[in-house]
Amino acid sequence: MREHHGKDESYYPYAPPDAVVFPHTTEEVRDIVNVCRRHRVPIIPYGVGTSVEGHVLAPAGGVCIDFSHMNKVLRVSVEDMDVTVQAGVTRKQLNDEIRHTGLFFPIDPGADATLGGMSATRASGTNAVRYGTMRENVLSLTVVTADGRIIRTARRARKSAAGYDLTRLFVGSEGTLGVITEVTVRLYAIPEAISAAVCSFRDMTGAVGTVIQTLQSGIPIARSEALCATTMRAINAYNKASYKEQPTLWLEFHGTEASVVEQAELVQEVAREHGGEGFQWATKPEDRNRLWSARHQAYFASLQLRPGTRSVSTDVCVPISRLTECIAETSRDIERASMPIPLFGHVGDGNFHCVVLIRPDNAADLAEAKGFNERLVDRALAMEGTCTGEHGVGLGKIDSLKKEHGAAVHLMIAIKRAFDPDNILNPGKVVPLTP
Amino acid sequence: MREHHGKDESYYPYAPPDAVVFPHTTEEVRDIVNVCRRHRVPIIPYGVGTSVEGHVLAPAGGVCIDFSHMNKVLRVSVEDMDVTVQAGVTRKQLNDEIRHTGLFFPIDPGADATLGGMSATRASGTNAVRYGTMRENVLSLTVVTADGRIIRTARRARKSAAGYDLTRLFVGSEGTLGVITEVTVRLYAIPEAISAAVCSFRDMTGAVGTVIQTLQSGIPIARSEALCATTMRAINAYNKASYKEQPTLWLEFHGTEASVVEQAELVQEVAREHGGEGFQWATKPEDRNRLWSARHQAYFASLQLRPGTRSVSTDVCVPISRLTECIAETSRDIERASMPIPLFGHVGDGNFHCVVLIRPDNAADLAEAKGFNERLVDRALAMEGTCTGEHGVGLGKIDSLKKEHGAAVHLMIAIKRAFDPDNILNPGKVVPLTP
Repeated sequence: MREHHGKDESYYPYAPPDAVVFPHTTEEVRDIVNVCRRHRVPIIPYGVGTSVEGHVLAPAGGVCIDFSHMNKVLRVSVEDMDVTVQAGVTRKQLNDEIRHTGLFFPIDPGADATLGGMSATRASGTNAVRYGTMRENVLSLTVVTADGRIIRTARRARKSAAGYDLTRLFVGSEGTLGVITEVTVRLYAIPEAISAAVCSFRDMTGAVGTVIQTLQSGIPIARSEALCATTMRAINAYNKASYKEQPTLWLEFHGTEASVVEQAELVQEVAREHGGEGFQWATKPEDRNRLWSARHQAYFASLQLRPGTRSVSTDVCVPISRLTECIAETSRDIERASMPIPLFGHVGDGNFHCVVLIRPDNAADLAEAKGFNERLVDRALAMEGTCTGEHGVGLGKIDSLKKEHGAAVHLMIAIKRAFDPDNILNPGKVVPLTP
Repeated sequence: MREHHGKDESYYPYAPPDAVVFPHTTEEVRDIVNVCRRHRVPIIPYGVGTSVEGHVLAPAGGVCIDFSHMNKVLRVSVEDMDVTVQAGVTRKQLNDEIRHTGLFFPIDPGADATLGGMSATRASGTNAVRYGTMRENVLSLTVVTADGRIIRTARRARKSAAGYDLTRLFVGSEGTLGVITEVTVRLYAIPEAISAAVCSFRDMTGAVGTVIQTLQSGIPIARSEALCATTMRAINAYNKASYKEQPTLWLEFHGTEASVVEQAELVQEVAREHGGEGFQWATKPEDRNRLWSARHQAYFASLQLRPGTRSVSTDVCVPISRLTECIAETSRDIERASMPIPLFGHVGDGNFHCVVLIRPDNAADLAEAKGFNERLVDRALAMEGTCTGEHGVGLGKIDSLKKEHGAAVHLMIAIKRAFDPDNILNPGKVVPLTP
C-alpha cells in the first residue's frame, strides 16, 4: 500500500508516505486534516498517481489521502451542462456515467486521471485548443483548508464577479493550498458530427504552419497534434502500423454534419499549401478511435524505443508564433543527444513534449536529461513561453518556476504562507519556501 | 478634476480623492505607489469611470491614479492572436487600432471601458456566451504591488501549469490587490459571416427556453440577449422605433457563410417551438449595427422611463436551468414596485439586470431599491447563483459577498492582508476587513 503510493509516472526516487487513508466524504477529509494539523504531519492528496513531476511523492513522509473511495458522480444537470463529482471520479468513468445525457467532458490528458487530480494540476491535453483546460472548465470546487474549514470556491453560475477568483487559485495549486474533495465542471454537447484526419509533412514547419493558419482563419479545430518522425517510428513499431515516418498531424473537427465537411475542406486546402499529403480520414466512431489510439499510445510506444527505460517528460509551451523556431532548435539539441528523444504535442496550444528515455539508476543519463530539459526551458522562457504547459511544477520544476516568474514568486509564497502557515499541505511542492 | 473622479455610474454619494495623478508608464505608477505607501495614503485606480458599484469612489480620500495617459497599444501579434496594451486603452480604441489585422477583441460590456478597468472588474457582456469573460481572455497582466514591485502574472503562452494562477487572482480584484498597468488579451478572427436577428415572444419563458435548447444542441451562438416588454417600450420611445412591446430576443451568429446560415435555420426552428415570431434578420454591417445599437441603448433608454432619475443596477447570475424561475419571481416583485423596473440581460450566461429607477436624494426610493436588490440576491443565491455576474462587488455588494461565500471570505481576507498589509489599495472595496 505505502509502496504503491510512493511513486508516480515520474523518474523521481520512491518516496512513500507514513500512512494512507481512504475517506468517503468531505467531512472525513476535514477530520484527517484536523488530526494532521494538530501533529504537524504532511498531507498528500492522491488520485490515481499519473502525474509526472512527483506531485504525489512523500519525501517528508506524512499521510497520503487516497480518493479512490470518493468516486461518486453527485449530480448532473443537462440544462446547465454541468456536473459535480467527488474528487476521485476519473474522466473516463465520468464520460461513461453521463453518456446517456448527450453531453461529455472534453478534457483529455491521455491518462485516465481523476477530476480532483486534473483540477489540482490544471490539466489539459488534446482537446484544449477547442475546449480550454481545467482552468476554463472548473466552475466550482469544494476544498478543505489547512485550518479545517470546508469551503466552496464558487456557486454554479457560469460567470461571477463576486470577489477574488478562489476557483482558479485552487486549480493548479497541486494540493499545496487546500485539499480538493468535490469538483463541478462544465460539460459540452456531444457534437452531431466528428471527423478525424491524419496527414504527413516533409517537416514540422509545415505541420505547425498548417495549424497556425487554420486557427487564424477562425476554424474551430477541436484537436491538432503534431508528432515527429521518431515518434511515428515508435508508433509503427508498437502498433505494427505503417504510417509514413515523417512529421505528422492528427486533426479533429466537431460540429454539425455540414460544418464539419466545410472545416475539413478548408483545412485540407491549408495543409496542401504547407506540403501536407496523404490525408487519411475517419468519421465512424470505430475508425476515429483507432486513429486516436495510435496518437494516445505515443508515450508508451516511445518508451519501447529503448526498452527498460524511464522517461523525463518535458512540457514547455510557447506562443504559437515561436513554436516552429522552438521545435527546430530543440530538434537540433535532440540530434546531439545520446538517447532517442521523441517529440510530440498539442501544437494548437503551442505545447509539446520531449520524452527523454533514461536508464534507471544511470547518473549520466539523468544528468543529460536534466541538461536537455534546462536548455529547453530556458529556450521557451526566452520566447515568452512557460516551463510547464500542463504537467505542473511538483518537485521537479521549482527552479524553473523561479526563473519564469521572478518577483511574482513572492506573491505565491505569500499566498502559501497565508493559507498554510504550518506548511502541512503537500510540503516541498510548487513554491520555493526555502530560497 | 477631483470632482470628475469622485463619481461613477452608480447611485453612491460623491466621494472625491485628495489628488489625481496621470502616469505615463508602469515605473511612474510604481513611484506613486511607493510614495503612497510611505504616507499610508489610499490608492484608487481609475479608467473611464463607467463602473456601477462605486469602485472608483474615494470615501477615505487618497490618490486617484487616472490611466488616461497610459493609452498605448504596445504590441499586437497576428500569429499568436494576442495584444498587449497599457491599462488605459479602451475596448473601442483597441478594436479600431487592430482592425487591419483581421482580428478583434470580443468582450463588450456596453460602455467603452478601459482594458485595465475591465480586467479589474472581471467584465463580460453580450459576447460572453461564445467568447467568455475577461477571466477567460486575459493572458497576462503587469501589476504594481503594494510593496512597489513590478510583476508580470504570466508569460504569453496560451496555457501554463506553472504555479498559482496570479492572472486570474488579479482579474476581478478591483484594484484591492495591486495596480494593473498593462494587459495582454486574446484576440479572435473577425468571423467570415455574421448574422443578427430579433424575435419576439409571448413571455420570457419562451425567450429563455429558446436559448437553453440552442446551447444544448451545441450551436455556438455568439450573442443571446433577452429584453422584457418594459425595456422594449423604453427602446421604442427612446429610438422612435416600433418593436413589438413583448419579451424579445436579440441573437447573433458568427462563422463561415454556410455555418451561419445553418445555425440561423436551426435556431429559427427552436424559437418557433417556443412561440417565437416576427424574426427580423440583419447581415450587412450597417443593418446589424442598427439592430444592436437599440439593444445597447437599453440602459439609457430605461433611464428615460422616469426622467431625472439615477439607477440601482442589479446583476445576479444563476444556473440557466433556474433562469426562467428567477426571472418569473423577479417579475412578480417588479409588479409590486412603485417605480418602473426594466429587466434585460445576457440569458445565455444566466445573467440579467434590473434597472431600478430612483429619484436622487429620495430616501424612500433608495430603500425600496435596496430591498428589491436584496430579495433578488437572496433568490439568486438560493438557486446556486451569484450576487454579481459582471459588475463586481465595489462598495455595494460586500454584504452579499459574505452571504454568497460564507467561510471562503476568510481566504479572500487572508489574500488581501498578505498582499496589502497596510490596506492602501482601494480600501473599503470587495473584502470585509472589518466584520
